[in-house]
Amino acid sequence: MTRSIFPSDDKTQRFAPRANAEQIEEGHVLAPKFDADGLITCVVTDAWSGEVLMVAHMNAEALARTIETAQAWYYSRSRQTLWRKGEQSGHTQRVVEMRVDCDQDALWLRVEQTGPGACHTGRASCFYRSVRLKEAGETAIVLDFVEDRTFDPNTVYRGPRK
Amino acid sequence: MTRSIFPSDDKTQRFAPRANAEQIEEGHVLAPKFDADGLITCVVTDAWSGEVLMVAHMNAEALARTIETAQAWYYSRSRQTLWRKGEQSGHTQRVVEMRVDCDQDALWLRVEQTGPGACHTGRASCFYRSVRLKEAGETAIVLDFVEDRTFDPNTVYRGPRK
Repeated sequence: MTRSIFPSDDKTQRFAPRANAEQIEEGHVLAPKFDADGLITCVVTDAWSGEVLMVAHMNAEALARTIETAQAWYYSRSRQTLWRKGEQSGHTQRVVEMRVDCDQDALWLRVEQTGPGACHTGRASCFYRSVRLKEAGETAIVLDFVEDRTFDPNTVYRGPRK
Repeated sequence: MTRSIFPSDDKTQRFAPRANAEQIEEGHVLAPKFDADGLITCVVTDAWSGEVLMVAHMNAEALARTIETAQAWYYSRSRQTLWRKGEQSGHTQRVVEMRVDCDQDALWLRVEQTGPGACHTGRASCFYRSVRLKEAGETAIVLDFVEDRTFDPNTVYRGPRK
């Protein structure tokens, strides 16, 4: 990756330190908890339909860029790279609102999704299958497809899918 | 914890094995991916308002019990115990629908939340603070409180909070 123009790149300590439960839960300052791999979980919902589009992860750099630009940046665990959503597909996400949870180890992004969908399989949402409940004692828990494809992923994604 | 009546307790292999991307992404069988700690991330939304209430984790046992009972069970990483949501507060969650994402490493639960809220701080949702965007170069990223308390956690939670 080439040198970035983002000011956050030069900061090693971008966010407030975490002091105690009172500060973390009732404070007015973002003090995110990154896990052992330096990542924080992000729930992404469509700002208009309310549907959960995807679950992704951010490292400190992705979080700083998302705050600075209001465009969704993530960190890909499989490819181990920083990644702006839609940089390959064009299906970018404008962040309408970002929220943080009580213990500040999860983020909720309400986004305006550009294009026909967020999922690399060609659906609007990654959550296109429903799990049948109360199937006690069954070896195989059955999934029902509840969303159709909205685009052809083989046309949209060239090279490795994102 | 005393001996459970749940049939899932005696199973060591509860879910289908994961074969390949085609089976995982386009198959009709639940083959969840648990992380190195044996956990899977769960997004929980209110079935009626659509609001994200919380992000929690399940181990295989919690997932099996949730499927069997349609009541939300989780695994507490901090307390290292299986946990039925609301067992202390009474604020249980009936699962209206469970979905799984494309690579089956995240779950989305649409729940009917009993009582005034899901958060141990006394709010309806754990995501009661909004992160101010485009605050580039600021050391402290400011949070705005966007939800009031709906109950008194000191009355509802006796002993360790859940």
